[in-house]
Amino acid sequence: MYQIGIVKRKIVRADRAAVDRLASFGVATVHEAMGRVGLMKPYMRPIYPGVQIAGSAVTVLLQPGDNWMLHVAAEQIREGDIVIAACTAENDDGFFGDLLATSYRARGAAGLVIEAGVRDVKVLTEMRFPVWSKAVSAKGTVKATLGSVNIPLVCAGALVHPGDAIVADDDGVVVVPAALVGKVADAAAAREANEGEKRAKLASGVLGLDMYKMREPLERAGLKYID
Amino acid sequence: MYQIGIVKRKIVRADRAAVDRLASFGVATVHEAMGRVGLMKPYMRPIYPGVQIAGSAVTVLLQPGDNWMLHVAAEQIREGDIVIAACTAENDDGFFGDLLATSYRARGAAGLVIEAGVRDVKVLTEMRFPVWSKAVSAKGTVKATLGSVNIPLVCAGALVHPGDAIVADDDGVVVVPAALVGKVADAAAAREANEGEKRAKLASGVLGLDMYKMREPLERAGLKYID
Amino acid sequence: MYQIGIVKRKIVRADRAAVDRLASFGVATVHEAMGRVGLMKPYMRPIYPGVQIAGSAVTVLLQPGDNWMLHVAAEQIREGDIVIAACTAENDDGFFGDLLATSYRARGAAGLVIEAGVRDVKVLTEMRFPVWSKAVSAKGTVKATLGSVNIPLVCAGALVHPGDAIVADDDGVVVVPAALVGKVADAAAAREANEGEKRAKLASGVLGLDMYKMREPLERAGLKYID
Amino acid sequence: MYQIGIVKRKIVRADRAAVDRLASFGVATVHEAMGRVGLMKPYMRPIYPGVQIAGSAVTVLLQPGDNWMLHVAAEQIREGDIVIAACTAENDDGFFGDLLATSYRARGAAGLVIEAGVRDVKVLTEMRFPVWSKAVSAKGTVKATLGSVNIPLVCAGALVHPGDAIVADDDGVVVVPAALVGKVADAAAAREANEGEKRAKLASGVLGLDMYKMREPLERAGLKYID
Amino acid sequence: MYQIGIVKRKIVRADRAAVDRLASFGVATVHEAMGRVGLMKPYMRPIYPGVQIAGSAVTVLLQPGDNWMLHVAAEQIREGDIVIAACTAENDDGFFGDLLATSYRARGAAGLVIEAGVRDVKVLTEMRFPVWSKAVSAKGTVKATLGSVNIPLVCAGALVHPGDAIVADDDGVVVVPAALVGKVADAAAAREANEGEKRAKLASGVLGLDMYKMREPLERAGLKYID
Amino acid sequence: MYQIGIVKRKIVRADRAAVDRLASFGVATVHEAMGRVGLMKPYMRPIYPGVQIAGSAVTVLLQPGDNWMLHVAAEQIREGDIVIAACTAENDDGFFGDLLATSYRARGAAGLVIEAGVRDVKVLTEMRFPVWSKAVSAKGTVKATLGSVNIPLVCAGALVHPGDAIVADDDGVVVVPAALVGKVADAAAAREANEGEKRAKLASGVLGLDMYKMREPLERAGLKYID
Repeated sequence: MYQIGIVKRKIVRADRAAVDRLASFGVATVHEAMGRVGLMKPYMRPIYPGVQIAGSAVTVLLQPGDNWMLHVAAEQIREGDIVIAACTAENDDGFFGDLLATSYRARGAAGLVIEAGVRDVKVLTEMRFPVWSKAVSAKGTVKATLGSVNIPLVCAGALVHPGDAIVADDDGVVVVPAALVGKVADAAAAREANEGEKRAKLASGVLGLDMYKMREPLERAGLKYID
Repeated sequence: MYQIGIVKRKIVRADRAAVDRLASFGVATVHEAMGRVGLMKPYMRPIYPGVQIAGSAVTVLLQPGDNWMLHVAAEQIREGDIVIAACTAENDDGFFGDLLATSYRARGAAGLVIEAGVRDVKVLTEMRFPVWSKAVSAKGTVKATLGSVNIPLVCAGALVHPGDAIVADDDGVVVVPAALVGKVADAAAAREANEGEKRAKLASGVLGLDMYKMREPLERAGLKYID
Repeated sequence: MYQIGIVKRKIVRADRAAVDRLASFGVATVHEAMGRVGLMKPYMRPIYPGVQIAGSAVTVLLQPGDNWMLHVAAEQIREGDIVIAACTAENDDGFFGDLLATSYRARGAAGLVIEAGVRDVKVLTEMRFPVWSKAVSAKGTVKATLGSVNIPLVCAGALVHPGDAIVADDDGVVVVPAALVGKVADAAAAREANEGEKRAKLASGVLGLDMYKMREPLERAGLKYID
Repeated sequence: MYQIGIVKRKIVRADRAAVDRLASFGVATVHEAMGRVGLMKPYMRPIYPGVQIAGSAVTVLLQPGDNWMLHVAAEQIREGDIVIAACTAENDDGFFGDLLATSYRARGAAGLVIEAGVRDVKVLTEMRFPVWSKAVSAKGTVKATLGSVNIPLVCAGALVHPGDAIVADDDGVVVVPAALVGKVADAAAAREANEGEKRAKLASGVLGLDMYKMREPLERAGLKYID
Repeated sequence: MYQIGIVKRKIVRADRAAVDRLASFGVATVHEAMGRVGLMKPYMRPIYPGVQIAGSAVTVLLQPGDNWMLHVAAEQIREGDIVIAACTAENDDGFFGDLLATSYRARGAAGLVIEAGVRDVKVLTEMRFPVWSKAVSAKGTVKATLGSVNIPLVCAGALVHPGDAIVADDDGVVVVPAALVGKVADAAAAREANEGEKRAKLASGVLGLDMYKMREPLERAGLKYID
Repeated sequence: MYQIGIVKRKIVRADRAAVDRLASFGVATVHEAMGRVGLMKPYMRPIYPGVQIAGSAVTVLLQPGDNWMLHVAAEQIREGDIVIAACTAENDDGFFGDLLATSYRARGAAGLVIEAGVRDVKVLTEMRFPVWSKAVSAKGTVKATLGSVNIPLVCAGALVHPGDAIVADDDGVVVVPAALVGKVADAAAAREANEGEKRAKLASGVLGLDMYKMREPLERAGLKYID
């Protein structure tokens, strides 16, 4: 149950070195390394393509049509953090624009993930301030009702604790619990190590059918080849 | 109530100089300057990013699967106009493509806003003919049933009178009543003037919490900081 | 009715020369040349803009959350083929990524059309391996349940037989029955021939109203001009 | 452009007798009688089936997550009015529940049409207080930001002036301008008069093809019968 | 590829006795009996609950906003047929209402399945004329552009040949190829026979885990029980 | 991060007496009593109207197209439990039907909440086995891939721990942490106590404007009454 009206100042961030290792892997790899879990829903899309970031989560719970807590959150940002914002209701307003981006960047934020709308996307793109959102909307918001900062919350279907590692790229957003970042980075590295070799084989024309030894299980499952 | 089968030839366009002033502001700024109203719904998206236009509205009411009135509208376009097209029903057909764009450009149109589908988007992008639409679809249309041109209509949730000023950019589309364009441009300019200073402060690390004097009202609202 | 657990090896591909002729026309032109039919639904979008491809269909029927048959399909790909993948249920998982793309490219595939999700879109974009999909999602899949390869299937509302010609561009995807490719290419060429002249006239300021002789039918339909 | 912070007390309601005549026709008939215009979008659905109402519009502009103006509107309701509520942004919160319904009923309201969410639908159904809405949601709202009452506004794609006649049934919601209610009721009556005879003929097995004399125009359009 | 402007008069209907046998099974059972294929997409919903029908398909291809071909189709209906209507584009207009239902009933139609909108749903419900549709909308249509009747077409993702058996209930709509109806009815009967016994066991408290002997494969797959 | 392949047998259920007290309040009241939090997203709808249930959560994490874990979960159900099922990906398959409902009922389940599809809804309605789901679909599922039972998970945007209290009615679904059920029931009761008096006043014609003393804050906010 969300606590409303709370700002938690001291949070335990995922180990920086481990997060930096995660940053080199894409979302798909990290999600696979975790056992195919931790993804936000696929409606979370980047406002411009080609960015890949990793950082620790500062979480923000918003009220619909009200971006007050995004200002409160700014003070809690440390270098390399990614702000994760959810709303107590479905709402596509433009909660975040270029002024907040300027402030967040000054505080060291690596980006924003918001299950709601964002605006000034042209300027944000020029600033190279990356945002993953559910919508783009010019609609402005008020500052009248409290939410919370740095509480555990659900964003786009994923549970996020403040301090968790976040990885985001063109494929979406994944959440890695702070305590598991090192282990997940190891698993991702192992997975990636394999991928180079696999890629070379596939590029040379070897079939996945053979490389993954699928022919026998396919036959056992009853697959029939006909002409 | 929409009148069907009407083309209004004489419309009062928003003052050109005032529209030109509006053109320098983004949709978010104009919408805020109007008191946070006038926006079309956020499903209206540009077919390519990075454009910002302003102009006077020529309005077109379409029937589903039928683009006849887009041809009728071409004759009513004056230099700098933006065509605003709505449909009597939900329909994503590709009502508009490169031939119509060629004609509209020859007539001086600055762009198209259509609550329906558009096609030939690659060519439109190469031509740099900007379109905001609800969908991209190759589906062709017939020319069989009347709609109207230059009647007041609702496009993507916004009421548009012919001659109203339209501003469109990557954040969406906003409608400014013709009679208010000068006043809104003034308000937008005043707002923008403020923004430079605010941006500089935020960039230097000043928090919105302090710049906007939010700490006291947040405390009054009951916000609690915990460690 | 779909047959499950079947791979058809010998399929009759559309005539290569005719497909190559189709490749020069866009989806909208081909769809018009067929009598305004054959389109997939407009939610099928390219993962990056600006590509136009044509090829013969290798079809794949997938089970939700399971990409096994995409591996089986790889072996059936011939130079210039386009893989058309549908799923027995609504599912947005990331069935296809850079490893499969590497394999498909090695087999000569020109691209993929999938009514489901795709991942590694940044790498796919860098590889210039074109994909049209319903979603982007990092979500991985299993290899546990049989579907089929090279059966007739419905993809995004369009019936596709293996060997049919597929044309895909920024406007969407169209399916041309293998037996009709030559005839459709002829009709598309005839249509395109007309378009250059039309475009020149429209660019010079001639109205579609006059070029298409619409004034008389509009008047007969009851259109009224008012001031 | 919406005026924010306004309550208009004196509005000109559609003629009561004419509205009462409209009440006997369904939404489809009224919409046809107007020339196929005036409908709200089809996502507006009744919370329970089988109701048909007509009345004069009291309009309310809401802010997202904030139902303050629904309370302000209550005072403006007269016997037989239908409250039409729109929101400045997409928002599905439960703005209206059984307490407001009790108050609205005491004021004489015939129902509510709201482009947003509603709650307590079980109690509303038991009370037989009809609501057409975009969503059902238990989410509560605050009372912090002004909207307006009795301004012209757009609800679910339809322009509504305060005092306009509203007809709502299982097929949706239609808006009839106050000045045209008598004329539209006449046209609907004429249309309905015809329908009884048509229905009897069709029920006896006469085909619409013959009754509407469609065979000749179909042949002219090129329809071919094959065996 | 759809043929436009065609009405096929002689179609081979699925064997009536076999269709009648199918009518006793629900959509889920029939779909399972076919190997989990043949379903329309789940957005096809009945306008009122509790009906289960089976019949032979008369197919209709519509143009957006145009219901002309539904009148043409009426003449092709035989006792017990179900009309299956698709549209060349996404469109939610109300193509079908109580007059057409009266005519269709007089012709012997058992119901309508339409990937578009329907209106007069209150009267249709009172008449007990069952319809499965994508939307309810009062929006009227024109009669201006040809489609076709009794061509193979795709409706809500399922391929339908004229004469195929259709089963529809509260779970959705399934298509059974005419030639397979008997075999599918046999398989459904076999499946159903099993279900009674299974239901009794489950009702008595036997677990599916034991009845389906799942414990061993679950353990092999690695399932761990913890306290 | 979800643990895959786990069944937790011993969970701490919310206090039964307190849950029973909750059962008398609707979802809207409980959600307000918690401070307007805890709701699932509004796309979760009951398969038939008029039911209100409360119970303790048994949670199930499913894989797309695979309902194996719903069978595993049956064994963990105790009298009065509500099964809460989420899926690792967006998928609308019919994971649950009348056989599983028979088994769940035999185990004492009060109902099911599933962020996916459900089938056999006619039989479920006749059985009066209540289900809240995202979709209705006849599509069957396989039993091939592990998920988990009784892990904390996110269902339709809400975090659910096994043992939490769930309340569901026509307005949606709300989650109450097990430790807070008594306190929330008290707050709900207090809220409800107030409501009777408020309802009586409103029914007698007293305005919310006066009862809630809104006139002064509205005036302070700048509301203007005009004629």
